[in-house]
Amino acid sequence: MSGNTTGVLFKVTTWGESHGPATGAIIDGCPPRIDLSEADIQEELDRRKPGTLSSSSPRREADRVEILSGVFEGKTTGTPISLMIRNCDAKGDAYEGLRDLYRPGHGDITYQAKYGIRDHRGGGRASGRETAGRVAAGAIARKVIAPAGITVAAWTKELGGIAARSLSLAAAETSPLRCPDPEAEKRMVERLEEARAAGDTLGGIVEIVVRGCPPGLGEPVFGKIDADLARALMGLGTIKGVEIGAGFAAARMTGSACNDPIGTDGFRTNHAGGILAGITSGAEIVIRVACKPIPSIARPQQTVDIQGRPAVITVGGRHDVSVIPRIIPICEAMVSIVLADHLMRQRAITR
Amino acid sequence: MSGNTTGVLFKVTTWGESHGPATGAIIDGCPPRIDLSEADIQEELDRRKPGTLSSSSPRREADRVEILSGVFEGKTTGTPISLMIRNCDAKGDAYEGLRDLYRPGHGDITYQAKYGIRDHRGGGRASGRETAGRVAAGAIARKVIAPAGITVAAWTKELGGIAARSLSLAAAETSPLRCPDPEAEKRMVERLEEARAAGDTLGGIVEIVVRGCPPGLGEPVFGKIDADLARALMGLGTIKGVEIGAGFAAARMTGSACNDPIGTDGFRTNHAGGILAGITSGAEIVIRVACKPIPSIARPQQTVDIQGRPAVITVGGRHDVSVIPRIIPICEAMVSIVLADHLMRQRAITR
Amino acid sequence: MSGNTTGVLFKVTTWGESHGPATGAIIDGCPPRIDLSEADIQEELDRRKPGTLSSSSPRREADRVEILSGVFEGKTTGTPISLMIRNCDAKGDAYEGLRDLYRPGHGDITYQAKYGIRDHRGGGRASGRETAGRVAAGAIARKVIAPAGITVAAWTKELGGIAARSLSLAAAETSPLRCPDPEAEKRMVERLEEARAAGDTLGGIVEIVVRGCPPGLGEPVFGKIDADLARALMGLGTIKGVEIGAGFAAARMTGSACNDPIGTDGFRTNHAGGILAGITSGAEIVIRVACKPIPSIARPQQTVDIQGRPAVITVGGRHDVSVIPRIIPICEAMVSIVLADHLMRQRAITR
Amino acid sequence: MSGNTTGVLFKVTTWGESHGPATGAIIDGCPPRIDLSEADIQEELDRRKPGTLSSSSPRREADRVEILSGVFEGKTTGTPISLMIRNCDAKGDAYEGLRDLYRPGHGDITYQAKYGIRDHRGGGRASGRETAGRVAAGAIARKVIAPAGITVAAWTKELGGIAARSLSLAAAETSPLRCPDPEAEKRMVERLEEARAAGDTLGGIVEIVVRGCPPGLGEPVFGKIDADLARALMGLGTIKGVEIGAGFAAARMTGSACNDPIGTDGFRTNHAGGILAGITSGAEIVIRVACKPIPSIARPQQTVDIQGRPAVITVGGRHDVSVIPRIIPICEAMVSIVLADHLMRQRAITR
Repeated sequence: MSGNTTGVLFKVTTWGESHGPATGAIIDGCPPRIDLSEADIQEELDRRKPGTLSSSSPRREADRVEILSGVFEGKTTGTPISLMIRNCDAKGDAYEGLRDLYRPGHGDITYQAKYGIRDHRGGGRASGRETAGRVAAGAIARKVIAPAGITVAAWTKELGGIAARSLSLAAAETSPLRCPDPEAEKRMVERLEEARAAGDTLGGIVEIVVRGCPPGLGEPVFGKIDADLARALMGLGTIKGVEIGAGFAAARMTGSACNDPIGTDGFRTNHAGGILAGITSGAEIVIRVACKPIPSIARPQQTVDIQGRPAVITVGGRHDVSVIPRIIPICEAMVSIVLADHLMRQRAITR
Repeated sequence: MSGNTTGVLFKVTTWGESHGPATGAIIDGCPPRIDLSEADIQEELDRRKPGTLSSSSPRREADRVEILSGVFEGKTTGTPISLMIRNCDAKGDAYEGLRDLYRPGHGDITYQAKYGIRDHRGGGRASGRETAGRVAAGAIARKVIAPAGITVAAWTKELGGIAARSLSLAAAETSPLRCPDPEAEKRMVERLEEARAAGDTLGGIVEIVVRGCPPGLGEPVFGKIDADLARALMGLGTIKGVEIGAGFAAARMTGSACNDPIGTDGFRTNHAGGILAGITSGAEIVIRVACKPIPSIARPQQTVDIQGRPAVITVGGRHDVSVIPRIIPICEAMVSIVLADHLMRQRAITR
Repeated sequence: MSGNTTGVLFKVTTWGESHGPATGAIIDGCPPRIDLSEADIQEELDRRKPGTLSSSSPRREADRVEILSGVFEGKTTGTPISLMIRNCDAKGDAYEGLRDLYRPGHGDITYQAKYGIRDHRGGGRASGRETAGRVAAGAIARKVIAPAGITVAAWTKELGGIAARSLSLAAAETSPLRCPDPEAEKRMVERLEEARAAGDTLGGIVEIVVRGCPPGLGEPVFGKIDADLARALMGLGTIKGVEIGAGFAAARMTGSACNDPIGTDGFRTNHAGGILAGITSGAEIVIRVACKPIPSIARPQQTVDIQGRPAVITVGGRHDVSVIPRIIPICEAMVSIVLADHLMRQRAITR
Repeated sequence: MSGNTTGVLFKVTTWGESHGPATGAIIDGCPPRIDLSEADIQEELDRRKPGTLSSSSPRREADRVEILSGVFEGKTTGTPISLMIRNCDAKGDAYEGLRDLYRPGHGDITYQAKYGIRDHRGGGRASGRETAGRVAAGAIARKVIAPAGITVAAWTKELGGIAARSLSLAAAETSPLRCPDPEAEKRMVERLEEARAAGDTLGGIVEIVVRGCPPGLGEPVFGKIDADLARALMGLGTIKGVEIGAGFAAARMTGSACNDPIGTDGFRTNHAGGILAGITSGAEIVIRVACKPIPSIARPQQTVDIQGRPAVITVGGRHDVSVIPRIIPICEAMVSIVLADHLMRQRAITR
């Protein structure tokens, strides 16, 4: 559970750089005899693609996934599932000017500090492109948790400071910004357009909701499921905050207001967000994450070069104005991966 | 890195229930030849004890730590350090009335769902008492990171809705509420007293600051140090939210405002909170956590019993009104443990 | 699965030095609701005690185990089980003369090389005393595998060059040397007595037999159950060789002789030793381990001191003439621990 | 460290089935800035190819490795190294007759028992073909340990019952059977030819020798380096026994004969095989493994089909007569992987 692998039983490893030959993932520990095709995974990958809004990245990757192992005649075999996605539209040369410059807000300077070397093209390993492997793995995780009745869905709660109300998760799925509130979405689109015109970018808040999760998933005391969910989500480069249930608002509540009374038909409120003492309670799991604005902006910025000399940088390349909505399927994937792992761990102690 | 163990190289395992014979921790992987005495650990444990404010728990544990292995003639040997703290003031019988009732806001109901059995006395394994082992382990982690120049300190940023300004971390250490803003602290104490009188409890926000951390700690892509910090802190029962640097505020910023310009003498701002792409940048690491109000309130609450029948519960026992300030050394311990682990991992790839 | 912890789901950590205050073990991941008392564990520990033969160590430890957590009202709760055994008969001062000398055949010189420090008293962490924790953990592992019908038993196949025939595993249990062949045992006792008189020690071979193991335990390709069994057994200081089924004899067989034909009622032979491609087949698992003679001999030996100067050493202390029969319950414990872990892992993928 | 991943810091994951699209490996945790090209890896893979003896498999795989990530401009970057080898000469249809039959001595029956499904073509995941990924990973491991002065070499000590004397490890490298004793090799070749003519196969013994290993590698008590070496080697399907130093012969020695006296210039003998208490001593590490005869024989064998009905099977396909010499670079790879991991772990505790 270090570096590029996560999970105890349902283990996911990703590999690949933004402008290398390919990226991919290994899913080790997937139960056998689950129907799985490349089309199943492709469907999730397609949800992650740049949209058609003008604020979307013009990079066009086919993102065609290839299953290289672990599936036989349409079913998982229990052996490692190796997935590969070729990088077809890689234009590494476009980054030549960034070889010796550190882009503010990116990992260029920290990778160099850590390793003394880095693949500077498109952020290398730290690129959002790495998340393709996560989404592919998440598609498989969904297949592990679905038979237990668990669904994972996320929606845009806020973008560029504009808040939306959740009307229906289903409505979010078909909206361009994964926002179920049409009026708010209209203003979000305007705000995105303004930011794009200004060479700037925007952040936002995504809410992830898990329904149908059985009680009992999660382990004391370091392996709590909220701890693992926080790790999974905070491990996305764009995310600077994670809260569960009432989250930061709980800090201003009294115990009598925050505690969820228990009725014969379940909890009366859900400030706990479906998790008590790190173990699922059977109530909806509700998580919100704060996404920072994309650091690649089309404005000159102050920085230093690899020798520490001052420089001004203007980041070119092909970028979105906001990680929303593309971060949505990635968040769902990470949550699904954590749930699949804990579901399997719970089965191990159940006779 | 599951269940009751955390870390890859500097590994901490805790064990023990609130009202069992003892609690403790194993620290495996601590480098050899570090000066370590029981007094070193005791000092940190004493910082975690209930205070003398009327809002503090009257439970009085000596919390006397015993080193059972891994230290020889005052120095660590590289072998597992086993620490034990006897539960002297355990009054399990006081909980007899709670044997078949689920306390709202606690893990009683989820432990029962997970395991089909639970030690109901004082929350059993889910008790805050478990954190004594974490604090003890944190004291050792501090000894690992201190020679690298790293210090970890936390302070009360908000309590019961009253915000404090950070004047100086040193001032926080000597204040009863670990709050460096005397005026705010005065109001916090009043608010605590009001809550106690009302049989209620309060939440708050703690900020943890890491100084002197070298750049380069953290690993792509699941082992990012912000991900591990979020996991370590969200794994405390009281914490419902974690944010790093600008955190949730970043969601409302533009990229041009959020990016930290890089100057020849370092970053000009610190919205990143000292971490870029999951790797430390050398800037201060800044983390804030949201603590929910303690769920043990002295008021009747609606619940069900183990057979699912409706019941009203009034939680007795000896409880604080807020986890603040006792959570402060625990947060520091968790952050120190993560840093020690990543510092050692970084050494492994450095020739 | 490094250092002092083993297992993925049924995880065992041991701690403690030969002449420190105590030794112990943490068992994390044990399923809940298993009957468990200190007496259950004590029974296994008593099997590991020095015998009453004159060739046995005169060190007399009560080896009284204390359960400190994870058991509530006689049943496991699913939380970590902490076990402690006080070192009552520790006589560390007796080792003062060995503080700066390296005993041949022991880990003194390698611990010093690794850590730059060591607890020299009785071998410190490398002492056979550490295995008390393993045996205690093994007693719990037995409780996990027994309901699945799995039994683990070992016997003395060879001692000091004298081979025994296996007549019945049950007979071994009640024999002083755990040897089911009375005639061979008589000669083994004589050989032990000769060695003791000569200030020397003897090695031997132990065979471990697992019955009732269901097919399907073990994982490709690094987590094969034979690989994990080899690791578990080779990790005992005394063991220099491990073989499974036909073992080294298989190297001299032809494929047509070595392959086990499969009949409608199972395998016709068992050269595979119950494991094919790293996964149990349902046949008996048969393992043999080679135990070296105990290195603590009562004769002068050539060595160097901590400064590298030549020296002659005569090891005093209280030692057995052979690790047999005391190694027997330890081997059984290690095998039981591996089986418990893999049984739980298999449950996790079974719906 | 379960299933298809091994290692704590230098972590190797393999994936792929014998007749799927490809096999491969991920090496995560490799230190940065190591020169690495596909040619470096290819060299080791070529050593694993079938030989030109008539006893060798006629399957001809190009085994062309492709580096998909983790290397930039000829140097490792510290990020996961993804390696892929396409299966070009896969003839899955040839196995159609084996879809419902269990080959004796193979994992067909155990995979089916474990997973309820299997890729029957060429052994699927249990095929020796999986070891290509191990050898590729081993080539990288060699690059990690070489700068520390460590070399790993293996040779054929016995084949079909014919023993060889070790004259020089270098001589083994250039011999067709990796046997440095020309006279013995001549008889081995004859024996192989006899076996091939008889439709049968042969086993043998390989010895692996590690030179230049610094003292101090290995961890108490479950992470001993001999334990990890035994696991790494016993995890090869063909290996049924592992011994270190004197190995099984130690069981018949006395302590006074077995202990290695320590002189001012090192150990006088090496019965310990370079490891004491699980930690390297600086002496040569000497390991022997027993390889069973390849189970794919060209003779009718008794078996059952997937419904449990009796059947006679004659295994076709393209097979070697013995795993020797092809197992040699695989053994070297596994030992190199273990050493790289422990070398890095040791660096982590060294200041």
